[in-house]
Amino acid sequence: MARGKFITFEGGEGCGKSTQLGLLGEALGKEGIDVVVTREPGGTPLSEKIRSLLKDEFGDPPCDRAELLLFLAARAQLVRNVILPALDRGAWVVSDRFSDSTFAYQGYGRGLSLEAISVANEFACGGLRPDLTLLLEVRPSTAAARMRGREAATNSSADRIELAGDEFHLRLKRGFEKLAELEPDRIKRVDAEGTPEEVAKRIWTYLKPLL
Amino acid sequence: MARGKFITFEGGEGCGKSTQLGLLGEALGKEGIDVVVTREPGGTPLSEKIRSLLKDEFGDPPCDRAELLLFLAARAQLVRNVILPALDRGAWVVSDRFSDSTFAYQGYGRGLSLEAISVANEFACGGLRPDLTLLLEVRPSTAAARMRGREAATNSSADRIELAGDEFHLRLKRGFEKLAELEPDRIKRVDAEGTPEEVAKRIWTYLKPLL
Repeated sequence: MARGKFITFEGGEGCGKSTQLGLLGEALGKEGIDVVVTREPGGTPLSEKIRSLLKDEFGDPPCDRAELLLFLAARAQLVRNVILPALDRGAWVVSDRFSDSTFAYQGYGRGLSLEAISVANEFACGGLRPDLTLLLEVRPSTAAARMRGREAATNSSADRIELAGDEFHLRLKRGFEKLAELEPDRIKRVDAEGTPEEVAKRIWTYLKPLL
Repeated sequence: MARGKFITFEGGEGCGKSTQLGLLGEALGKEGIDVVVTREPGGTPLSEKIRSLLKDEFGDPPCDRAELLLFLAARAQLVRNVILPALDRGAWVVSDRFSDSTFAYQGYGRGLSLEAISVANEFACGGLRPDLTLLLEVRPSTAAARMRGREAATNSSADRIELAGDEFHLRLKRGFEKLAELEPDRIKRVDAEGTPEEVAKRIWTYLKPLL
């Protein structure tokens, strides 16, 4: 049994990751591939509990370092209990965010040491890296419109990260761009403007070589 | 205003740390010192939530790496929000466990890389180290008797760590001994056999030079 492929979606808020994740899961299923779709932080009972701590639902917001370590704890559990077992049995795993988000948000965004993040993340993942990462990119105006649409649809309000301010989101965007420059073979920048179907088509061109 | 001192208690289960922590807090208070007593994992609302995840109260036990990262997240929040502000205003901080427990339990006990722990822990603490660490040592039979007494008194049962087996606890004991050998100036081995008052007297001899 060949080991499965590990594919991650990355990008800022409102880039359309969740929609594309669902579409890709369906498309791979039609190809007869066993697919596990997951998200970060989350994907295991422990990791979902950690997710709720990160959302600060009880009034003690994590400091920057605690935030990073909580993300990594959630990741360690997801890798160990979900991703590795799935890949080992030949399934493909598609994840909404993974390590690149940590470098972008906590490193470039919050300003934590990229080197410390790298060591700690390597430890959390046990060295696991995605086979392919799709970085979805949209104009700020598109992101804002999609986020407003999501808030209206789910009757939710913006969370800590979403409220972090324009300057933070600019650092984030540039962080993702730098990551893509450093690993052009793994990280593919995808124009995520247009209808979901149009974006899905662009994504599929990067998937084909893996099939 | 002189910076406060940071004192930690370490040792295996049933060594009498909690009792001695309380006695030392009282004794320092009598000297007119502003004392903050805390415990790990815990000591902040977020860290106490993390503590409950570590105790696996909902059926998804953390894997070894997630466990380490959760301990460090709880520590980062405690250092940032409780310990550093207290030391800065001149208070002394006395903590039930700190970094040495991580090296002993997750490093020597669980077998995780000491080097990875060192880097991640340094990041979590922002470089903070105790001024004095009291390593309480008892015979296994004493520890077992004290733990049975505590379980009877609190009507509780043994947790994950307490149930980890004799071999684990032997590695733990040796781990603490190695740590004390590496840093004899900071880590003082205290014979914790005898009455609480007898042990408190031994501890006080190490405290005096700091006053």
